[in-house]
Amino acid sequence: MLNAVTPEFAESLHKAVPPDRFDEAGPSYLEEPRGRYAGQAGLLVKTRSTNEVAALVKAANTARVPIVPYGGGTGLVGGQVAPDGPTPLILSLEHMRALRAVYPEENVVIAEAGMILADLQVAAQEANRLFPMSLASEGSARLGGILATNAGGVNVLRYGNTRDLCLGLEVVLPDGSIWNGLSRLRKNNTGYDLRHLMIGAEGTLGIITAAAMRLMPQPTGRGAAFLQVPSPDAAVALLAFASERLGASISALELIHAQSYAFLAETLPDIRLPFDTAPEWSVLIDIGTNGTTDPQEALLDLAEAAAEAGLITDGVVAQSQAQRAQFWSVREHIPEANRRIGAVSSHDISVPLGEISKFITKGKAAIAEIGPFRVNCFGHVGDGNLHFNVFPDASKSRADYEGDRPAIKGAVHDLVHALGGSVSAEHGVGRLKVEDLEKYSDPAKLATMRAVKAAIDPNGIMNPGAVLRASS
Amino acid sequence: MLNAVTPEFAESLHKAVPPDRFDEAGPSYLEEPRGRYAGQAGLLVKTRSTNEVAALVKAANTARVPIVPYGGGTGLVGGQVAPDGPTPLILSLEHMRALRAVYPEENVVIAEAGMILADLQVAAQEANRLFPMSLASEGSARLGGILATNAGGVNVLRYGNTRDLCLGLEVVLPDGSIWNGLSRLRKNNTGYDLRHLMIGAEGTLGIITAAAMRLMPQPTGRGAAFLQVPSPDAAVALLAFASERLGASISALELIHAQSYAFLAETLPDIRLPFDTAPEWSVLIDIGTNGTTDPQEALLDLAEAAAEAGLITDGVVAQSQAQRAQFWSVREHIPEANRRIGAVSSHDISVPLGEISKFITKGKAAIAEIGPFRVNCFGHVGDGNLHFNVFPDASKSRADYEGDRPAIKGAVHDLVHALGGSVSAEHGVGRLKVEDLEKYSDPAKLATMRAVKAAIDPNGIMNPGAVLRASS
Repeated sequence: MLNAVTPEFAESLHKAVPPDRFDEAGPSYLEEPRGRYAGQAGLLVKTRSTNEVAALVKAANTARVPIVPYGGGTGLVGGQVAPDGPTPLILSLEHMRALRAVYPEENVVIAEAGMILADLQVAAQEANRLFPMSLASEGSARLGGILATNAGGVNVLRYGNTRDLCLGLEVVLPDGSIWNGLSRLRKNNTGYDLRHLMIGAEGTLGIITAAAMRLMPQPTGRGAAFLQVPSPDAAVALLAFASERLGASISALELIHAQSYAFLAETLPDIRLPFDTAPEWSVLIDIGTNGTTDPQEALLDLAEAAAEAGLITDGVVAQSQAQRAQFWSVREHIPEANRRIGAVSSHDISVPLGEISKFITKGKAAIAEIGPFRVNCFGHVGDGNLHFNVFPDASKSRADYEGDRPAIKGAVHDLVHALGGSVSAEHGVGRLKVEDLEKYSDPAKLATMRAVKAAIDPNGIMNPGAVLRASS
Repeated sequence: MLNAVTPEFAESLHKAVPPDRFDEAGPSYLEEPRGRYAGQAGLLVKTRSTNEVAALVKAANTARVPIVPYGGGTGLVGGQVAPDGPTPLILSLEHMRALRAVYPEENVVIAEAGMILADLQVAAQEANRLFPMSLASEGSARLGGILATNAGGVNVLRYGNTRDLCLGLEVVLPDGSIWNGLSRLRKNNTGYDLRHLMIGAEGTLGIITAAAMRLMPQPTGRGAAFLQVPSPDAAVALLAFASERLGASISALELIHAQSYAFLAETLPDIRLPFDTAPEWSVLIDIGTNGTTDPQEALLDLAEAAAEAGLITDGVVAQSQAQRAQFWSVREHIPEANRRIGAVSSHDISVPLGEISKFITKGKAAIAEIGPFRVNCFGHVGDGNLHFNVFPDASKSRADYEGDRPAIKGAVHDLVHALGGSVSAEHGVGRLKVEDLEKYSDPAKLATMRAVKAAIDPNGIMNPGAVLRASS
């Protein structure tokens, strides 16, 4: 049983932290990018240290007051706002953005949870290193949030998800104790891996206050190419084919359907498209090399060999870094073109690589049965992670199909589940997909998750209603 | 409160599994490689399916009978035997070694927990892929065991620990339910990551019955070199220096002290050493390349540049695959030479890369204060994982120093802990290091581990006494 913030509770926190930590919970703390949830105006506290977080959590736990941890507010599944339940303490880490230490020779950086992702990239660059996590919201997303949601992005193929880049964590647990797990170790087998339990838990098991993250050597050469493929199957085969030739230097392999080019041409005519006639299927491949390999030559060789093997039908290799940037600009503007067209329903899904083709064929058929929609399918084919977005017929608007959304979503998610896929590949569960998790999760997994939640947060104060239904 | 196996309990299991699953618990099931623990002769059952494991676990949970999961029996910390407590059910997965599926284009293999590591390597090779996990006991160690202990080995630098190679798990939980988490997905953010919780839990939270593991493209070129370095610091700097030039192609960087060469010359004179005069410090570097990079040329270029930068003083690059194998034979015989000399105390430790030098200097000084020992320090410097082994003075034998072992172990572990390191880098906790875990772990971590254990295994039947002290 949770209690709302009361004036007495707020008063008690003034003993724990200085007065300037308290602030008005303005609209930016109560909105989320998708506009699905309106958060309650809770008590906003902007902490300045891990000890302050610990003191606040301890007080909230004693008073059974719910806490919503707040980072950059960029999450796409409503994990950062509490639309219902008792009025919460909103605990923002935005002022905890210190770069605690950089160890270039160890390829390690230690930063506080409030550090903005783009700032972390810059800090790495200044140490002649790469922090490879990169995603659309990197100018606002904060380290704590990308860890809490195990964010993905465009470089997962080569460098992994956020959890793969984390060596250690500092976490305030729901009882207010501090787990000092800021390890810089590459090997450490001393008990259960709490780090991976906290990563992706979306603030429901504790509050990440700092992290030790891996850095990478910067590639010395970079190259990109657009390649036409005869089918999504060929794109998957091309990935295996390219990996045998180029090893770990492939950073990204993005699949793009003709619909993407059509939407770009319609809504953003200034974007220069790579092909005169849009191919039904194409990929954007990006590589980063070290040593003597010339990236442009390597891509030309790859294209030649892939054409001989029947995996591609045409292609264009970027001739300069400027052209490579232009190629990426095409890819990066697809979401904006989609927004301008206006999707009826969007899906962040993943399937095993070998099921991508079947998913696309069956998915389109299922959508066609519901109505005359246009489907734009694109995404990180190297990760099996597709954005499968459904748009109104050219003569209609999304408003004409509002009622179809549940059927579309259900058809796509059922298909993904049947193919052994995930209905949340990179955005997490938040509040948006709690029911999906209940519907599609393995029952033993769900029961174990609930047992773990009850064990670590017995009072249920940590971000109640996110990931798991709040206990009443 | 746990109960010993009784004849009635054994009888009840005959309803759950066919009679040929029961066997005598001979010596091989009751011994462990270090000879520190003698297991009790429990009731041995060799299961043939996940459903059988589930039925047995359910029965044991109902009867509160402890279970010791058994794989290849190669663990070095006593996790595979129960020397005390109520007589257990020994549940061996050695007959569950099916290769369930290989997906070469996805770079995924699904195998049962009883599959021997070397067989998995062969299965990958037959699909023209690499399963990169490699360690001394690979001819006996089984997949379930290397997952349960998050095994390391010689290729961690490039490919990560076992947990980094796992995409999904099938696990029988302590209540006998089956978690079907055999995902082949690269991206999946649907709730808590139970996979990483089970990996490294050493059979105390459930029994892994099958796993989906990542495969890698096979490198097309391989090379190795012995390089003399002026200090351990230079070896760490060399790793960063080489990574900038060779990117992800570096598979291993092994540090070797002159003492290793001296022990090899003394005990295994047939092993051909790389240098006429043993350098105080040297490294063995190994690379695997794809594309047009010639590994031998790349290593020669690296050696030249590193010499100019003052990071190495001399070196020899393998001129053929036969010579490369010979180089590795030097490294791989160091443990055998150590065994023939006879260590007073051995340590599987890791420290942050930047602390390696300090650890070696201070560690040797601390040992010298205890007595006139010889120290052989070698290991995976790229992972910060050193084997720091202490030997008797040339004129003495290990028996002369038996009484010094606790002081030596205490000095080494205290130093490792002070430097932010781990007292179990790759072997796990088992029964050997339960006290170390209690002494050196962060208290909040330990409390959380205990809470998780109680939540998932409330009756404490799963491998009691391993990792955490058995509740009495």
